[in-house]
Amino acid sequence: MRIAVDAMGGDFAPQAIVEGAVDAARTFDVDILLVGQRAAVERELAKYALGDARLEVVDAPDAIRFDEQPALAVKTRKGLSMRVMCDLVLAGRADACLTMGHTGAALVAGTLAFGRIEGIARPAVGVWLFGLQPNTFLIDIGANVDCKPAYLLHFALMGSVFMERVRGIKRPRVALLANGAEDNKGNALVHDTFPLLKRSGLNFIGNVEGYDILTGKANVIVTDAYAGNIVLKYTESLSEHLLNLAEEQLAGPLSGEAMEKARSVLGNLRLRADYAETGAIPLLGVNHLIFIGHGRANAKATKNAIGEAMRAVDARLIDAIRAGLKTIDPVAG
Amino acid sequence: MRIAVDAMGGDFAPQAIVEGAVDAARTFDVDILLVGQRAAVERELAKYALGDARLEVVDAPDAIRFDEQPALAVKTRKGLSMRVMCDLVLAGRADACLTMGHTGAALVAGTLAFGRIEGIARPAVGVWLFGLQPNTFLIDIGANVDCKPAYLLHFALMGSVFMERVRGIKRPRVALLANGAEDNKGNALVHDTFPLLKRSGLNFIGNVEGYDILTGKANVIVTDAYAGNIVLKYTESLSEHLLNLAEEQLAGPLSGEAMEKARSVLGNLRLRADYAETGAIPLLGVNHLIFIGHGRANAKATKNAIGEAMRAVDARLIDAIRAGLKTIDPVAG
Repeated sequence: MRIAVDAMGGDFAPQAIVEGAVDAARTFDVDILLVGQRAAVERELAKYALGDARLEVVDAPDAIRFDEQPALAVKTRKGLSMRVMCDLVLAGRADACLTMGHTGAALVAGTLAFGRIEGIARPAVGVWLFGLQPNTFLIDIGANVDCKPAYLLHFALMGSVFMERVRGIKRPRVALLANGAEDNKGNALVHDTFPLLKRSGLNFIGNVEGYDILTGKANVIVTDAYAGNIVLKYTESLSEHLLNLAEEQLAGPLSGEAMEKARSVLGNLRLRADYAETGAIPLLGVNHLIFIGHGRANAKATKNAIGEAMRAVDARLIDAIRAGLKTIDPVAG
Repeated sequence: MRIAVDAMGGDFAPQAIVEGAVDAARTFDVDILLVGQRAAVERELAKYALGDARLEVVDAPDAIRFDEQPALAVKTRKGLSMRVMCDLVLAGRADACLTMGHTGAALVAGTLAFGRIEGIARPAVGVWLFGLQPNTFLIDIGANVDCKPAYLLHFALMGSVFMERVRGIKRPRVALLANGAEDNKGNALVHDTFPLLKRSGLNFIGNVEGYDILTGKANVIVTDAYAGNIVLKYTESLSEHLLNLAEEQLAGPLSGEAMEKARSVLGNLRLRADYAETGAIPLLGVNHLIFIGHGRANAKATKNAIGEAMRAVDARLIDAIRAGLKTIDPVAG
């Protein structure tokens, strides 16, 4: 199996990306194509004794300039690492690709290069809820801020296939995110999507409310990217806020030694709540596999993300989505 | 000043409500009308030495039955405490009213009894973000899950007037909640509302994202009740989840004595993150003042809520909203 990795994307590129890729190549049975400016990537790679780890550098001469919008740049400049990475997959030289670069740019690059799966209304991005609730996948957190019922039906299908095939959850419980768990709750979009999901053949359990996001009640929680993005970013903010308050207020009553221990516990919780740590998230609904990591990804997150991409390749995720699309009520779309 | 309090609403009614009302009447310069089934309320009241605290019981013979929908019941049954409480305000016998009963029922009762302020598209419910960020008010968390730009403009106005008059914040900074802070972010509703707010004369600072909900960047964060309700309930869920995890994981490394102290700190944080503790929230946009508390409100929360209602009376909140409505661009609505 071959994974193409964007060595230039992310706040700590190329160092952290190359370090994580080397670790992955040593640990997993995988060939890694490191895509980026050859000299820079080779300089990083030279730091490691590679043994029989299989890594190859693929040159991508261009870089996104500070003064340009990443999502526009990838549209026109084929020499960018994000584009070259996708082209390797298109050419059959890699089975999946991974970038820690700008999320919006990655969405554009992936959609442009791979095209939508026939029958899927809109590609979408899902995220599992960090270390906090790994058995729940929230979709969409990508670009679809204004949705139609058919989009949400397809998000539900793609999320369900992902959680079943890649995360090993049988008959994932699918729910719509709403302002209450009762069937009559939700906005017009939720109301109109509800009957489509009801007859979709998916394991639809109805609506869940904000309180249920972390309870594990649903394995796939479907919403538009407006609410999805708010939940994602608020998670970061509220977690930081609460853990900082806890640290501040424990510092008074606890002795120096006890406080050291408390800091280490809170530090671990911070990592659990931080999706930069948890690998990468898939763009679903395009014809090839592309994973997008957090810009703050470190070497460990890069290695985890490569593992995640490998599981998706093994699971034949794209074929499973195509097959799933045939099983849901065709009238629904 | 007179405040009518629904003695029958909430999980701990009438005990906690009467206890909180007695405490308020002893502390504040206020007359309290306790509305509920006379015998039950008088039995509670008999527990206290009232001195010169001014409390009066007003009989409301009906109660919502277990088998009926509260929001339907208040439509037809005038003898319910929530209805009698509103009628006292309408008749000029109270300056504001407060219930810890069913939120949906209270919205119906308040809207039905008081009517919309002329020119306001939709009444809405705002909440300040608990002990976590008291200088930020999120509106709507009520019933308006599907909104038009004019609704959001009015939410912004009402939130701004509330934060200025009741919470003492000068020229409150108003923002739209979006999937990113840039001007071009947001769904269609946010895009269409943006120019209305821009020329409204309010102190509009643009979009904020989920990360900014607790940073204090904006004093009024405007969104529809779909996203607003999700944020509200997710706050409860994520706070509980993180603080429980912290408690679990501190219990290992910390000694018994240190853990006692840590538990007390985390317990206090739980209360700060819990909006049951922080008084009551206003239904804005109707012609009289009605505050709605959390069903789990205890005596302290009841007392706080009475204080909040008193501040709104003092601030002549309804008049201020009416005046504000004349200053915003009339074309905008």
